[in-house]
Amino acid sequence: MFLYEKNFDLQKKRALESLNEALEKGLVDSDIISLLNKINSLENYFTTSSCSGRISVMQLPDFGDKLNAIWLGKWHSEVKIEEVLDAINKHDGGMLWFMLHSPILHVAARTLEDAVELLNLAISCGFKHSNIKSISHKKLVVEIRSTERMDVPLGKDGELWVSPEHLEKIIEIADLQLRRAKEKLRRLENEIEKLKK
Amino acid sequence: MFLYEKNFDLQKKRALESLNEALEKGLVDSDIISLLNKINSLENYFTTSSCSGRISVMQLPDFGDKLNAIWLGKWHSEVKIEEVLDAINKHDGGMLWFMLHSPILHVAARTLEDAVELLNLAISCGFKHSNIKSISHKKLVVEIRSTERMDVPLGKDGELWVSPEHLEKIIEIADLQLRRAKEKLRRLENEIEKLKK
Repeated sequence: MFLYEKNFDLQKKRALESLNEALEKGLVDSDIISLLNKINSLENYFTTSSCSGRISVMQLPDFGDKLNAIWLGKWHSEVKIEEVLDAINKHDGGMLWFMLHSPILHVAARTLEDAVELLNLAISCGFKHSNIKSISHKKLVVEIRSTERMDVPLGKDGELWVSPEHLEKIIEIADLQLRRAKEKLRRLENEIEKLKK
Repeated sequence: MFLYEKNFDLQKKRALESLNEALEKGLVDSDIISLLNKINSLENYFTTSSCSGRISVMQLPDFGDKLNAIWLGKWHSEVKIEEVLDAINKHDGGMLWFMLHSPILHVAARTLEDAVELLNLAISCGFKHSNIKSISHKKLVVEIRSTERMDVPLGKDGELWVSPEHLEKIIEIADLQLRRAKEKLRRLENEIEKLKK
């Protein structure tokens, strides 16, 4: 059997210390802080990492080499084409991608029953790709994530494949998807107190 | 506590019957059948659904309305631009997307320990997005999936945003990603017998 339940309180104490440090340094997306606080105020859960959803422009030196990816631009709110073009102009080699990622939260749960309750609540709030990410002696971690996603190859080795008109359409769709994803975050924040014991 | 362990043998019997029917009807991707058979021969696991990875062209009548999505083209192996153009030519309204999806397998496990063993094996074979998808009284399901993914908006309401040259690049990347994903399937097939008790 796994010992995560035994280690929960100590792990929670440590996680909250790390979170407070990150908050002091301004490293946490502002539009997810109140949700994190609500989750951490519950007796049987604590957050271990989060992203409130993002649009990004990324350069990969070699195909699939995500370890050496360089962020040319990263936004946690809707973007304008000028911002994206500024990022694209920094591209100097390798593969160039435009991406949209769903919000993602990792939340440790005290027991398997707590994990499944959170998982089902997240799915009901629209986070359809939520799951139990890992189980070990240290932690039982629920991943909350949604389906919004775009991975659009824009160019390679300095060459741009898309026209400004196409880019404008891509950004419009990404902005719409990001807005929808953020609405799900607010829905989850409204519902999360159901998990109070 | 959850009763999935109690229901395992009955659920497995039913799942294998469904799989045999699907196999008889030719509904299972041929390049994943041997992996499914190996998993089902293990005492503590059975497969409930699978896709060996695919490239597709999809039409959504309205943005985000995946329920009413129409497949204009779907391939479980590498594609040529002519095939993709044939699919695109069927587009007559709504949003047009080009997509690449990682292989995905759902595997029920007898116990939580069995689930975590499979999860960790899948991750070590390159299926980094694997997780425990659901836990209920009926079943404990591991989802095996990888990171390969593309969601490229191609056009809207009959209008095409990408040039044939751009489409050629997109397909080249998708074919490469699909090849990599299928290699992971073969790696998993080679390793899966480690789970024999």
